[in-house]
Amino acid sequence: MTDLFNRHRALLDRALTALQTREYWAPFPEVPSGKIYGETAKAEGDAAFSALLGQPFALPGHPESARLGSEQSPFGPAIRITYPAAEPAALIAAAQTAAPALAAATPETRVGICLEALIRLNSHSFLMANATMHSTGQAFAMAFQAGGPHAQDRGLEAVALAYAEMTRFAAVARWEKPQGKAAPIVLEKHWALVPAGIALTIGCNTFPTWNSYPGLFASLATGNPVIVKPHPAAILPLALTVRVLREVLTEADLPADAVLLAVDAPGAEVTQQLATDPAVKLVDYTGSSAFGAWLRGKARQAHLFTEEAGVNTVTIAATDDFAGMCANLAFSLSLYSGQMCTAPQTIFVPQGGIDTDQGHRSFDEVAQALADAIDALLADPGRAAGIAGAIANPATLARLEAMGSKGRVIRASAPLGDGRTASPMLLAVEADDPISEEECFGPITLIAACDTADDAISRAAALARAKGAITAALYDTDESRITRAIAAFTAAGVNLSINLTGNIYVNQSAAFSDFHVTGVNPAGTACLTDPAFIAPRFRRVMWRRPAA
Amino acid sequence: MTDLFNRHRALLDRALTALQTREYWAPFPEVPSGKIYGETAKAEGDAAFSALLGQPFALPGHPESARLGSEQSPFGPAIRITYPAAEPAALIAAAQTAAPALAAATPETRVGICLEALIRLNSHSFLMANATMHSTGQAFAMAFQAGGPHAQDRGLEAVALAYAEMTRFAAVARWEKPQGKAAPIVLEKHWALVPAGIALTIGCNTFPTWNSYPGLFASLATGNPVIVKPHPAAILPLALTVRVLREVLTEADLPADAVLLAVDAPGAEVTQQLATDPAVKLVDYTGSSAFGAWLRGKARQAHLFTEEAGVNTVTIAATDDFAGMCANLAFSLSLYSGQMCTAPQTIFVPQGGIDTDQGHRSFDEVAQALADAIDALLADPGRAAGIAGAIANPATLARLEAMGSKGRVIRASAPLGDGRTASPMLLAVEADDPISEEECFGPITLIAACDTADDAISRAAALARAKGAITAALYDTDESRITRAIAAFTAAGVNLSINLTGNIYVNQSAAFSDFHVTGVNPAGTACLTDPAFIAPRFRRVMWRRPAA
Repeated sequence: MTDLFNRHRALLDRALTALQTREYWAPFPEVPSGKIYGETAKAEGDAAFSALLGQPFALPGHPESARLGSEQSPFGPAIRITYPAAEPAALIAAAQTAAPALAAATPETRVGICLEALIRLNSHSFLMANATMHSTGQAFAMAFQAGGPHAQDRGLEAVALAYAEMTRFAAVARWEKPQGKAAPIVLEKHWALVPAGIALTIGCNTFPTWNSYPGLFASLATGNPVIVKPHPAAILPLALTVRVLREVLTEADLPADAVLLAVDAPGAEVTQQLATDPAVKLVDYTGSSAFGAWLRGKARQAHLFTEEAGVNTVTIAATDDFAGMCANLAFSLSLYSGQMCTAPQTIFVPQGGIDTDQGHRSFDEVAQALADAIDALLADPGRAAGIAGAIANPATLARLEAMGSKGRVIRASAPLGDGRTASPMLLAVEADDPISEEECFGPITLIAACDTADDAISRAAALARAKGAITAALYDTDESRITRAIAAFTAAGVNLSINLTGNIYVNQSAAFSDFHVTGVNPAGTACLTDPAFIAPRFRRVMWRRPAA
Repeated sequence: MTDLFNRHRALLDRALTALQTREYWAPFPEVPSGKIYGETAKAEGDAAFSALLGQPFALPGHPESARLGSEQSPFGPAIRITYPAAEPAALIAAAQTAAPALAAATPETRVGICLEALIRLNSHSFLMANATMHSTGQAFAMAFQAGGPHAQDRGLEAVALAYAEMTRFAAVARWEKPQGKAAPIVLEKHWALVPAGIALTIGCNTFPTWNSYPGLFASLATGNPVIVKPHPAAILPLALTVRVLREVLTEADLPADAVLLAVDAPGAEVTQQLATDPAVKLVDYTGSSAFGAWLRGKARQAHLFTEEAGVNTVTIAATDDFAGMCANLAFSLSLYSGQMCTAPQTIFVPQGGIDTDQGHRSFDEVAQALADAIDALLADPGRAAGIAGAIANPATLARLEAMGSKGRVIRASAPLGDGRTASPMLLAVEADDPISEEECFGPITLIAACDTADDAISRAAALARAKGAITAALYDTDESRITRAIAAFTAAGVNLSINLTGNIYVNQSAAFSDFHVTGVNPAGTACLTDPAFIAPRFRRVMWRRPAA
């Protein structure tokens, strides 16, 4: 089955080039257009999704001792799909049975399978968009991108770097050591790649595919059977993924059980049991810092790759495009109702206000302008629904409710469109108020008054160090202060976006260019995708003997 | 100071080629010859060593609140050198003070410093040989190689791979995203390398430089200040190393405290305090599995790279060169009295004996032939002393004494030459006897009778999985069985040497070719030197803004 590898070789080579140059490259088109995906693709995806609803989900040959599944769309409808579920021990056993054949396959075979699966997943992007929309609450366009092509890009990125790592050093060498006038010592040496063990990918509710694909595909490409454990509220996107992978594995004469689905029910999660199984050597996790800490304490037999919580900040020091800044931030705050790991939460503004192209603006004027920009962005209900989507987790609405009393309300949250929705709430607080340093997941923005722009920068950087941050944004016109800010945010290990206006947002992290999560601060250790994310997933073992 | 980098650029490039091809390459000559190192080098090294004895060791500017040091040569003489010692908190503070400047230096500057230091250390190889000999008990020739050029090779290997990792991706990119008919979005992106934090290198008694250089140089090259914590019995080789590094750092206008020495006294070790300091993010450790487990449990803030204990095996299934095999193994068992992490310990032999070029040999005949080969090798007292050296730790002699009653003595241990010495003891045991699976560090070899050759292979592989192993040796003439053995040892994560005879030994691990320690079994996680050993030592942090 290395013909899959050969068939997709050009794609792989292009990916490897992109990884090195970090220039723009997006192999899987992000526009949900019939011109690209076929004029019938949207209708077919909608029909395929409808056909799945209320049915048992087919995963031929998958271990099964029960059927579980209670997904509920944040937009309203019950999903009523049931998935095959099995005890953790049965899943581990099935993975162990599949392991030797997967380990024995060549890197090219495994990489070819991963590439083929990603391409098939791409062709299912409209189905995946529906599945993602109705499990995460993302609006359709975003669900298409984040659930489909952007996730596939991230998967391909991981596969490409895995291939680079696996082929980095010679697999065979003739080692000839001179012995003065005597004949040299000549050894032949051979290296095998040995996978780490069983891999566990723990998905999250909000980005079930985007956050899971890198670990899943990196582990599989490097020869580790993967147990995919979706969030109980967002199973379908990963179940579809597992199905495609099992189909390609089977066609390649490898065991389908090299990729398994671990479905559980809310309140009866199997994650802890799986994560602490001695056979599980790799755990990719996206979720709360609390469970991240639990994993660090208990899953000590495994190498952990995590993306956890943090407090992303915006520092507004000055701008030469006040309207553009406000519009840009309004979108960043509204997009998917602040439920992105890259969404800003706390905005530091000097209490004395800022200089802008429209003259000086006081703290209150800046806050109000942001509120106005959000109002303008969301004025059209259809557009609002298409940007903000719905709220994935009911607990987020409760948090929003509780937060309202913790600051001066600049903009109140309100429902938007169908389902469980909420527009962004803006609260003004003092920078010294501890609330400005707490993670408040969802459509909650704190505008924190601080002394000066430099104070804002140092607070934002310190917050990233202490609580973690995946993104930071800065608006400034003073180049020497920008230089100081770059140094501060770099040392705090947070990727910084400066003076973004127009159609590019701090929330956006581009595969093949942006390393997502640095590993430097508490927001996580899993950098998508750097060599530290790949290298521990397999090892090299040698045999050597005198050359024939 | 990038001129250091430019000056040594060819050496670095050659190292990078060697890493990729894994062919023989040894930049630092291993022969202690006047023709290579200069006719006066040996005398100068001896004199320099003598001049250090009984004196305070000078480390200008190093934190110092006391003078400590109670090294004692296993060959007899007291060393009586005292070293500057400081409280852990003072060392951490000094490292933190040095950190920003080291982090701000370019990869080229740091790599240039490391290369220059290695070259200077090479020029001090005769002094280092004395220092190593009288702290470890290695005989002079081995102390020269293992303490000098072989350790320098391993250091260079780590520096080269660190350089490759740091320069692997573009540091700057112009990212241009098409927007249909509208103007593209164009961002400039910049990536900084951010070191992990403070690094701690915990040295061992037997190979203070060889086992410490990879972690030390990898951490320093990637921008992490390094606190070097020698074993209290083997300080001088690392103190000399720290001195050279501090000199080169100072000449390069970087803080000398980017490399610090943490000397303590037996019974009052500071290792635990240093390893658990929140600022310490990297720990390289060589030593017992018990302390390795302690580090895993307690030093959770740090990324651990370990080399721990294991049980290396030889499987004798058949040979077409019985005399050559016995001579080769006799050397492997005698070299440095079995105190190498790569030395064989348990030899599995079928109870029914083996086929050889000299006809069938019974189990007892194989055991006796090994004993005879050791006797022949060590018959000349001068040669014996030059191979076996001395016993580093008095506890090893006590263990040897206790082991004598645990099997049938085939060859008794006896003193050799000057100092604390012991020739190899051979004990015959049953393979089912648990003693065959225990680590017995030192000149102790167990010849374990098992059912068949395949039984021997599966026992040896299982032992590597369960207890860890860095090396395995196999003697066999059956190619299909050799193929099975390769699969078994590969899966167990142990590097296998097959049918070695002549002047190449299972104990030997060659920089730039052999990956030392696989990370697959309990013998350790620190593979010298693979990307997993380098990648977690630094991270990438981006800033991006609209292109000018």
